[in-house]
Amino acid sequence: MKTIKVAIAGPRGRMGKEAVALASNEESFELVSALDHKNEGKNLSDLGFTDVDATVFTDIEQCLIESKPDVLIDLTTPEVGFKHAKTALLNGVRPVVGTTGFTKEQLDELKQMAEEKGLGCIIAPNFAIGAVLMMKFSQMAAKYFSDVEIIEMHHDQKLDAPSGTAVKTAEMINENRENKSQGHPNEKETMAGARGADLDGMHIHSVRLPGLIAHQQVLFGADGQTLTIRHDSYNRQSFMSGVKVSVETVMKLDTLVYGLENILD
Amino acid sequence: MKTIKVAIAGPRGRMGKEAVALASNEESFELVSALDHKNEGKNLSDLGFTDVDATVFTDIEQCLIESKPDVLIDLTTPEVGFKHAKTALLNGVRPVVGTTGFTKEQLDELKQMAEEKGLGCIIAPNFAIGAVLMMKFSQMAAKYFSDVEIIEMHHDQKLDAPSGTAVKTAEMINENRENKSQGHPNEKETMAGARGADLDGMHIHSVRLPGLIAHQQVLFGADGQTLTIRHDSYNRQSFMSGVKVSVETVMKLDTLVYGLENILD
Amino acid sequence: MKTIKVAIAGPRGRMGKEAVALASNEESFELVSALDHKNEGKNLSDLGFTDVDATVFTDIEQCLIESKPDVLIDLTTPEVGFKHAKTALLNGVRPVVGTTGFTKEQLDELKQMAEEKGLGCIIAPNFAIGAVLMMKFSQMAAKYFSDVEIIEMHHDQKLDAPSGTAVKTAEMINENRENKSQGHPNEKETMAGARGADLDGMHIHSVRLPGLIAHQQVLFGADGQTLTIRHDSYNRQSFMSGVKVSVETVMKLDTLVYGLENILD
Amino acid sequence: MKTIKVAIAGPRGRMGKEAVALASNEESFELVSALDHKNEGKNLSDLGFTDVDATVFTDIEQCLIESKPDVLIDLTTPEVGFKHAKTALLNGVRPVVGTTGFTKEQLDELKQMAEEKGLGCIIAPNFAIGAVLMMKFSQMAAKYFSDVEIIEMHHDQKLDAPSGTAVKTAEMINENRENKSQGHPNEKETMAGARGADLDGMHIHSVRLPGLIAHQQVLFGADGQTLTIRHDSYNRQSFMSGVKVSVETVMKLDTLVYGLENILD
Repeated sequence: MKTIKVAIAGPRGRMGKEAVALASNEESFELVSALDHKNEGKNLSDLGFTDVDATVFTDIEQCLIESKPDVLIDLTTPEVGFKHAKTALLNGVRPVVGTTGFTKEQLDELKQMAEEKGLGCIIAPNFAIGAVLMMKFSQMAAKYFSDVEIIEMHHDQKLDAPSGTAVKTAEMINENRENKSQGHPNEKETMAGARGADLDGMHIHSVRLPGLIAHQQVLFGADGQTLTIRHDSYNRQSFMSGVKVSVETVMKLDTLVYGLENILD
Repeated sequence: MKTIKVAIAGPRGRMGKEAVALASNEESFELVSALDHKNEGKNLSDLGFTDVDATVFTDIEQCLIESKPDVLIDLTTPEVGFKHAKTALLNGVRPVVGTTGFTKEQLDELKQMAEEKGLGCIIAPNFAIGAVLMMKFSQMAAKYFSDVEIIEMHHDQKLDAPSGTAVKTAEMINENRENKSQGHPNEKETMAGARGADLDGMHIHSVRLPGLIAHQQVLFGADGQTLTIRHDSYNRQSFMSGVKVSVETVMKLDTLVYGLENILD
Repeated sequence: MKTIKVAIAGPRGRMGKEAVALASNEESFELVSALDHKNEGKNLSDLGFTDVDATVFTDIEQCLIESKPDVLIDLTTPEVGFKHAKTALLNGVRPVVGTTGFTKEQLDELKQMAEEKGLGCIIAPNFAIGAVLMMKFSQMAAKYFSDVEIIEMHHDQKLDAPSGTAVKTAEMINENRENKSQGHPNEKETMAGARGADLDGMHIHSVRLPGLIAHQQVLFGADGQTLTIRHDSYNRQSFMSGVKVSVETVMKLDTLVYGLENILD
Repeated sequence: MKTIKVAIAGPRGRMGKEAVALASNEESFELVSALDHKNEGKNLSDLGFTDVDATVFTDIEQCLIESKPDVLIDLTTPEVGFKHAKTALLNGVRPVVGTTGFTKEQLDELKQMAEEKGLGCIIAPNFAIGAVLMMKFSQMAAKYFSDVEIIEMHHDQKLDAPSGTAVKTAEMINENRENKSQGHPNEKETMAGARGADLDGMHIHSVRLPGLIAHQQVLFGADGQTLTIRHDSYNRQSFMSGVKVSVETVMKLDTLVYGLENILD
């Protein structure tokens, strides 16, 4: 198997640091450069990365032309990431972008470019393979179980409830689930909110406690049985298996794929 | 150990049937009679109970005088149960009553009678020892963990949310828990109800699904750790271990005790 | 949608009783007859089934010819079930058989008959859809997670450990899982058996406790995350959703399918 | 409430760092000094601790005499910790030592010194309050549930199975549990190890997976119900609530207490 040459945009961010570690340690990958908004001409080894050897560029075109990566892993912001992805495709480099922030129009534009160039491009809102499988399996199970509740559990510093993953899961389930209002038709909350949030008859519950990190379980019920699919994310390393699969897969694609669930089978 | 003579009021009810089985099968118990509102003079063996031999009475005084039980297990209704308990105490018989329906005044009256007679009397809203221990342990843990959420899960035919057990658990926790509003001060529900019901800053979530029976977990969180206490009730047999302990304990008491948690140590 | 006419072999067994209830209550099904080894000419309503009207036959050919079912649900024994399935196919009736007991040769013979006749035939070792999805999802997840352990939990009257479902799950996982010995290479049991049973480097743990019914969880782990798939079976009703799907699906097939996992998508 | 003056031995270790953070941030504590085997005369602020002001001593007597702590938190090694605890008691300072390594003789010697001096002394093998409560509750529950299995789950770099906490839990349970061999008398392992390790008839199962940190659940079963007590430890911060309670409690004691479970009520 040929080594895949990788450039990383955003190497000093929290996700970026993990990606640098991945690209350096994985035998089938070669880290050829980093793209940063400062530190032009330095080496990652100057910036606190031990046992890493990669030149830092601040200009993307120069980066791509000089270091000749096969894949650009972008872990910056939606604005910067979009420009990076376009420039990469124009220069024959396959983008793997971690973001939830692209619009439908931006995705369409990138897709057209990827297909014109015959290059793969992966845009992933979530790189945690376990979380993506949880969502995918939940969607599949919904064909056979029309009763489902979601319990997501996070640390108590999280501001919004329910979590984005919970809502995404519910939406994916809804594509397969028979439309119905769950629970007893005459059920009554003696304390407001007890039955959680209602999304098309499905119920979502958000638990917040110190100590917790990021956890979600999806419970399906039918006569005499329940099926539970649960994902626990303990730290940022959980994203790296998804980045790895994405880099490997983007080399075989000639179009854009949105969402890791569409490259896992 | 001396055999304990037991009479059962309400033998044909769902709990009563289990109690008849318990009193018949337990070596240290002897089932001496049953108290019913009909079937005077029949034997439980005539009423579909196999391998059971106990005369049915419809008059409580006659029942107590003729069959001479040590303990009357009452599994009828709050109204009937209160009369039974009083008559039992007046006749020197120790009552074990399963009910949530007695008023403070009724409990006080029974307690005074029990103490005057020097007899034990146990009134239990819940005979499932596992559920009672879950509540007791939760109360104890609350001294060290001020952040707690309750998730109770029942079949989808249950009408009220949250369950009585969840509310009782929260109240017991509150006796030990530092008063605080949990979650981030700025947390925001993007879908109403996501954070569940709020009882003094604690959150309670009610899940309803076909297949489920009766389950509750209490989650405590603190920096770097969580502690979870969970009870699963699968069928009515779960109550019988509590009835057994109550009958054994009531023989050693000379006052009224309310709630199984106060006889477990 | 046309009503599907159903005959049931083994109506008085534990599974059979549930199947009679299913076929009677489901609007799209019509229960046309039952096949028993006794009770010739009686009606199920004579045999303790309330609100059920179906003639009992002891001869399968007569049963199929006179009551003209579309599908024969067989819940008898492997020996009887095999004869029933063959006779059904010869008479143009589609068999749905719940059994783990057919040999490879028997399955091949039935498959050939089904294809010659252009009829569907479903042989299912397990009708609990939740359990089958748990196995299927576990097999899928194994492509991305090579570290997995199985914990199965049953009542303490179960004689064999691990359960058949756990072994079947491990075998299905093995088809996709990278071959490896899990755990630390130098790990050491200070008490024999602590690390469970070893199946090709995967570990299986069998818990037995009174109160439990039939539960299994499959845990996958990778850096920073775990994925858990769990099935809880509370009673025999859990099998009926699988029987329903099988009856509906067998009408559309023209070959034999072994295992519910191969008709769920 | 008077501020408690605290000295910390072993400030640069993994536990020590957390303890420095605790003693600095907790309002009712004042960090007055640190005890190290080097760095004499430096301040912790010179050693990479931000917003911390405490002189480092290498001689324990000088440390205790000059900085006058109420409590010495020792997070070094068993050998050093034992000497520190003795010297602390001789100098009127109350020791809180985190160790599993003291012998019975060492504990007896310290206890006698503590009582002669009328000073509190706490020796704790485990400072995670949640873990200690899990053990304590399990011991209590064993009075009512004689059937119990323990499942402990750790990362796959752990060498020994079962974990020390699992064995300690089983031993504590055994003090209250009716002696019995669990499972069916005729149960049979078709794969060796499936039923886990056997400790006096109780079964212990050790799961090892990447991603996991340190988790344990204790399952109790009886007719119709199960009770589960579970602790999840996500990082070293989990120990600090136990250190805090220990420091507060040691001020009120006039003897040695071994084990956090004996100061929690």
